[in-house]
Amino acid sequence: MKIALAQLNYHIGNFEQNLSKIKTAISKAKAEEVDLVVFAELAVCGYPPRDFLEFNDFIKQCKDSIKSIAEECDGIAVIVGSPSINPNLEGKNLYNSAYFLENKKVHTICNKSLLPNYDVFDEYRYFEPAVSFKTIDFKGYRIALTICEDLWNVDDDPMYPISPMNIIIREKPDMIINIAASPFSYSHPEERENVLCKNAVKYKLPIFYLNHVGAQTELLFDGGSMVINNKGGIVDEMNYFEEDFRIYDAKNVLENSVLPTHEFNKILLEDSVKFPRIYDALVMGIRSYFNKLGFKKAVLGSSGGIDSAVVLALAVEALGKENVRAVLMPSIFSSETSVSDALELGKNLSVACDFIPINSIYDSTVKTLHPFFNNLNFDLTEENIQARIRGFLLMALSNKFGYILLNTSNKSELAVGYGTLYGDMCGGLSVIGDVYKTEVFQLANYINRNKEIIPQNILAKDPSAELRPDQKDSDSLPDYDILDKILFQYIENRKGPKEIIALGYEETLVRKILKMVNTNEYKRHQTPPILRVSPKAFGTGRRLPIVAKYLS
Amino acid sequence: MKIALAQLNYHIGNFEQNLSKIKTAISKAKAEEVDLVVFAELAVCGYPPRDFLEFNDFIKQCKDSIKSIAEECDGIAVIVGSPSINPNLEGKNLYNSAYFLENKKVHTICNKSLLPNYDVFDEYRYFEPAVSFKTIDFKGYRIALTICEDLWNVDDDPMYPISPMNIIIREKPDMIINIAASPFSYSHPEERENVLCKNAVKYKLPIFYLNHVGAQTELLFDGGSMVINNKGGIVDEMNYFEEDFRIYDAKNVLENSVLPTHEFNKILLEDSVKFPRIYDALVMGIRSYFNKLGFKKAVLGSSGGIDSAVVLALAVEALGKENVRAVLMPSIFSSETSVSDALELGKNLSVACDFIPINSIYDSTVKTLHPFFNNLNFDLTEENIQARIRGFLLMALSNKFGYILLNTSNKSELAVGYGTLYGDMCGGLSVIGDVYKTEVFQLANYINRNKEIIPQNILAKDPSAELRPDQKDSDSLPDYDILDKILFQYIENRKGPKEIIALGYEETLVRKILKMVNTNEYKRHQTPPILRVSPKAFGTGRRLPIVAKYLS
Repeated sequence: MKIALAQLNYHIGNFEQNLSKIKTAISKAKAEEVDLVVFAELAVCGYPPRDFLEFNDFIKQCKDSIKSIAEECDGIAVIVGSPSINPNLEGKNLYNSAYFLENKKVHTICNKSLLPNYDVFDEYRYFEPAVSFKTIDFKGYRIALTICEDLWNVDDDPMYPISPMNIIIREKPDMIINIAASPFSYSHPEERENVLCKNAVKYKLPIFYLNHVGAQTELLFDGGSMVINNKGGIVDEMNYFEEDFRIYDAKNVLENSVLPTHEFNKILLEDSVKFPRIYDALVMGIRSYFNKLGFKKAVLGSSGGIDSAVVLALAVEALGKENVRAVLMPSIFSSETSVSDALELGKNLSVACDFIPINSIYDSTVKTLHPFFNNLNFDLTEENIQARIRGFLLMALSNKFGYILLNTSNKSELAVGYGTLYGDMCGGLSVIGDVYKTEVFQLANYINRNKEIIPQNILAKDPSAELRPDQKDSDSLPDYDILDKILFQYIENRKGPKEIIALGYEETLVRKILKMVNTNEYKRHQTPPILRVSPKAFGTGRRLPIVAKYLS
Repeated sequence: MKIALAQLNYHIGNFEQNLSKIKTAISKAKAEEVDLVVFAELAVCGYPPRDFLEFNDFIKQCKDSIKSIAEECDGIAVIVGSPSINPNLEGKNLYNSAYFLENKKVHTICNKSLLPNYDVFDEYRYFEPAVSFKTIDFKGYRIALTICEDLWNVDDDPMYPISPMNIIIREKPDMIINIAASPFSYSHPEERENVLCKNAVKYKLPIFYLNHVGAQTELLFDGGSMVINNKGGIVDEMNYFEEDFRIYDAKNVLENSVLPTHEFNKILLEDSVKFPRIYDALVMGIRSYFNKLGFKKAVLGSSGGIDSAVVLALAVEALGKENVRAVLMPSIFSSETSVSDALELGKNLSVACDFIPINSIYDSTVKTLHPFFNNLNFDLTEENIQARIRGFLLMALSNKFGYILLNTSNKSELAVGYGTLYGDMCGGLSVIGDVYKTEVFQLANYINRNKEIIPQNILAKDPSAELRPDQKDSDSLPDYDILDKILFQYIENRKGPKEIIALGYEETLVRKILKMVNTNEYKRHQTPPILRVSPKAFGTGRRLPIVAKYLS
């Protein structure tokens, strides 16, 4: 039996395009005499469809897509993900299903049982969990067809009371096929490999695993679909960050005896793996966002600092240098080197740089507000005014020429609220909002791996917002080395103040930082979507109340 | 047996304050020789605590609060909501629990079984559903203790496969006590009454129902706790929109024979009920937001239009006229009447109005951008620039003087994207973002019920953004009468295009509007939190992808 895995970049709600991609892959598979071609979880509608699932019209279009795909199933079988209607009166109205299509008909529908509802996931919002399971007999093989999370409950502290494979295994399947929509984080590839290999060993079965690729707003899918033998050895792994299509012979996979190359423990992620991976993910994230919204061109403010430098380099890689416009908007507080650094960066990337001085608008603003402010001192207000003038100038260019404004805030500043709402927090997409400041530096080093793209001076100087004379980030914030470590403990590891202090950090500092994080929830509520590269990003995966008074 | 219901306004994560309120109520109950005092769902930490539930430190503080409350339970029993740790290895780590405290100890913990995970709810994100149930014997009565949604599964098309009361009823309880955190919408009071009365009739048991009151950011809780007899008759209903404390004699309630005053069908909500209710809810929402964040003063732009007029009136009611600052920011496109109307409104409300002309900043901006825009025509860009100058001037006042900026966008314009991101969409809180334009007019009429507060001229004139000469909303949008009806079908009723067209609306118009709604998701992603008064508000209760291509 020849099995094809089609790893595709779907577009939520774009039924026509998704269907066309699926049909093209079926044709390709037919030409190669494939017996069974496999598509990802909720492939027909894209993942995550979110509340579109509550619209009957949307569900009908999913159903129509399935019908249309079934038409192609002559001489070939197809596995494809789609919502399906729960025929029972009780429970939610939908299942998250894997359709097995054969002879132009729906042969079997297998429903997802374990519905992830943590971090970025909301599946229990829409779907009823399956409680019964069956295998599928096809071409002499018995297939256990599961969906993503169904295989994910192999921990010592299981999140779900049941594991579907523990039940399905009684039917003695020959293989597991798992269709997934498993979002990327920099540590996800190893976790995914561990989980799948553990399953293969536990059930002594080969696994054909198929994932999405491409981005859906902030959620990135890295692909990395794979085939694992019944010893937990990886037979093949598909491309990361791009569409792929590969054909496997089931017999060969069943007879394959490659052994796992490592023990299934948590792997220490090397920087040499982490940062190239984040880089590729962000490039794909920008590209998908623009493609799916039908935009080509980006604009961003280039300050001469490291954040905008990294975003500019990523944008050029994703969209092409001719599609990126960098804007320098110096004020009286900008250092000369900021301007020259930004210009040099633009030169290195062959990106045209525009110069829009903000002084005249700033002066009119101060004059206009003078009767209200009287002789009150220069403070955060005036700093914010500068940032907001820059924000609204960039938005003016965006409006006039149809660019998307790329936001350049990093995760550290978003965490502590070191940014101006409607100022430097503007934008259609936050590119590095899930990358801590210290990681931004490492990303910059990776960008410079072959030649100097980001000028050395940008890497070397002390971070500054340049909104008042001689300002340094370190005037308001602890060193990023310490700040980022404390933030990581609080955000990624969800440690409380006592636990973090017990790690050796100074109590006053820890409490101050945690308070900053919690009291700035209101700012993060209004940020652009943030490309998610860590296991815990700001945005849909981290939901905190604004009016809370906790550690604040 | 004397039962006290304590309907309180909790603050998420503010353990000290919540504990103090609970203890004060216990003291009061003791003084009245109450046997059992009842507090709401998750009272110790406030509702919804969201991802704070993922922090061990937060759960520990819940536990400590329970311990501290138990200390007070000498000669009195207490029912109080708190998360509790799931002792089983399998399943999620927490339960949403009702603690029964007696003799200074935890007597029983009852766990919630039905975990709402739709609209604004995310309970399955955190909690394991209970699968076993027990009653509590106290003072000769057998109590079925349930939590909110546990009673909500009485539909013909039940969302959950089980109903806990169907199991608990076998133990022959004498009464149901239900502790809840059931958010307000304008139709919620009748729905709540129906659901509870249906339960009372179905199980032939009296119900003591206790709800939260007050707002947690966008979520409003109206109170309306009540006691129902075993015939479904309402014995008593507690105050709406304010804290309350009442004592009931269980014997009297059991013997009470008041009959239900209506059949339990969907009630047509009269405008004379709906708009006072929305008004009270919004006033409470503003007040709670400011109180819980520790702010006193608000600023807002007063344009002479109806939206800002209504928000201004609501703000004055919520915060006091001395705490509200209205700012007029006319441009060359502002009509003279806009200014005079806004001034008259300010006078009627005794609110000081400031005048900040935007022309000088606008001119500098246009001049600054001239080299880039050359001779391109005036378009949306220049309209947005005016809105953004207003936005950043208001933010400057907010920053300088510590005001919260109130946003004045209505639901109709948020729906179709008729607003400027970082301009009129700025603010800390959106007051009427869940109120359609036609409803804003009705709210204005209600505000004017006793005397003219909002000048007649504001009510009478055609809506306009006044961002270009002689602009009217109707240049870009259909009449609000039609627009709002189509939006309601799409947003509240989740009808698809065909279903809406079948109601008699013109196809091109319907498709145009639905496309506007879907393509403007990116703007709504960055709006301030919106006080929720409808059954389907923009915000946490409506989750749509940004890059989707569906009906767009």
